[in-house]
Amino acid sequence: MKTIENISRMSTFAKMMKKEGKSIGLVPTMGYLHDGHLSLVKAAKKHTDVVVMSIFVNPIQFGPKEDFEEYPRDLKHDEEMAREAGVDVIFHPLLKDIYPEGYATYVTVEKLTSNLCGESRPGHFRGVATVVTKLFNIVKPEVAYFGQKDMQQAMMIKKMALDLNMDIEIKIMPIVREKDGLAMSSRNTYLSGSERRDAAVLYQSLLKAETLIKNGERDAGKVIKAIEDMIKAKESARIEYVKLVDARGLKDIKTITGEIAIAVAVFFSNTRLIDNITIMVK
Amino acid sequence: MKTIENISRMSTFAKMMKKEGKSIGLVPTMGYLHDGHLSLVKAAKKHTDVVVMSIFVNPIQFGPKEDFEEYPRDLKHDEEMAREAGVDVIFHPLLKDIYPEGYATYVTVEKLTSNLCGESRPGHFRGVATVVTKLFNIVKPEVAYFGQKDMQQAMMIKKMALDLNMDIEIKIMPIVREKDGLAMSSRNTYLSGSERRDAAVLYQSLLKAETLIKNGERDAGKVIKAIEDMIKAKESARIEYVKLVDARGLKDIKTITGEIAIAVAVFFSNTRLIDNITIMVK
Repeated sequence: MKTIENISRMSTFAKMMKKEGKSIGLVPTMGYLHDGHLSLVKAAKKHTDVVVMSIFVNPIQFGPKEDFEEYPRDLKHDEEMAREAGVDVIFHPLLKDIYPEGYATYVTVEKLTSNLCGESRPGHFRGVATVVTKLFNIVKPEVAYFGQKDMQQAMMIKKMALDLNMDIEIKIMPIVREKDGLAMSSRNTYLSGSERRDAAVLYQSLLKAETLIKNGERDAGKVIKAIEDMIKAKESARIEYVKLVDARGLKDIKTITGEIAIAVAVFFSNTRLIDNITIMVK
Repeated sequence: MKTIENISRMSTFAKMMKKEGKSIGLVPTMGYLHDGHLSLVKAAKKHTDVVVMSIFVNPIQFGPKEDFEEYPRDLKHDEEMAREAGVDVIFHPLLKDIYPEGYATYVTVEKLTSNLCGESRPGHFRGVATVVTKLFNIVKPEVAYFGQKDMQQAMMIKKMALDLNMDIEIKIMPIVREKDGLAMSSRNTYLSGSERRDAAVLYQSLLKAETLIKNGERDAGKVIKAIEDMIKAKESARIEYVKLVDARGLKDIKTITGEIAIAVAVFFSNTRLIDNITIMVK
């Protein structure tokens, strides 16, 4: 495995691979790897010849009051984990090379990004779409892998690739969870012991909602209330949103029918966590 | 020469060419070809193995009160001219394939697009940047050719390609002019006989400005006034803007120094024409 910092070296390497007829799989990350990331690597290794993992904490997807500075970083440890998982190249570009002085170009995906995290984090998805476009152009993958944990992001990237004719297959892989159901996230490391215990309520509340719906509940408001009640019972929890949306357009629904997603964003003290499940209702 | 309508056929053809080690030159146009377009083809033929000309009248770069519907179209004649000029492929996609229902992704370039035509045509450059990104992703050129007549557009595309790491060389070719100096444009066809005669004033006024500057004038306001006076003397002319800007950032200047551009946008009755010159001042 090698680590490449230089953008044009990465681009040249990608073109070399293509000339040799090899397909490239890209796993874009912000580093501080966990088993969620590694599940993407595993999938990439199955379908493509060369697996590139990008590690870049992208400032333009963080709001001014968000955790860009504090976001956990540990390249050495990431390199060990990536090597063990079979990554061929880590692409770890410098901030000043990705956004040189005078940088001015942005990619936006409308509609899908207006609800959920798009509502509470203005500019977030523009930042993601922009950096992913850049990574795609540099690494030139045939397939790119995203996690279902960031459902709205993954759907946006899929839509962007389609709309802009990027000729890249976007694969969305299932959420990987801790033993108590908490969705893996680099931000879990922020949690204190008691916050960590409280955070398990996210998935528990989603499972409770699923049970309610399987038992016939069709009123979205009632399901939301049940989730909120469970989360509010935890001392460190502060709800940002609990929403039921249609799984295609991510618009709020009132009546539960068809393929739906339940998505939650909750602060545990200063740590913002998200989770979701999708349910098919006949 | 062949004409391809289907997006995935175009994309497959481009990938075939790449596999054969051939470079692709793209000349993006809205059709109704003139010698300006053909000068781009000539340059492309010199530097690349396969010349693709796209012909697509892009609705999202027209404002609601602009001439999208009336924009002149004549594919048969364009095909004849393109074949004669040595174009290998005309890519002529359908509107419904470029912007299918639910289309939602846009590319914007800030700063460079805030002045000049960006000020009077909100959304115009977003429309251009978006369609050009799509064309780049479909046709996969090594080099793409744009005309200096649309100076701000050409500079924006260059900036976009750089910012988004598109790995495409953007070549900007000189303005091609009629005998009386009028910059070639598909929109010249809208002009009546007397408007056509009046329109020659654009380049004449730019040359007059150049002479003033060469003779020592350094006050941008005075140069603008001289240009405006010449244009206003023509009965059918209505000025949208006359501006002196720095040639790198396209910001208005007060004092003439360094590399500058003089840009004009003028209506002759309902026909909006633009022109520009750049001048190096020591």
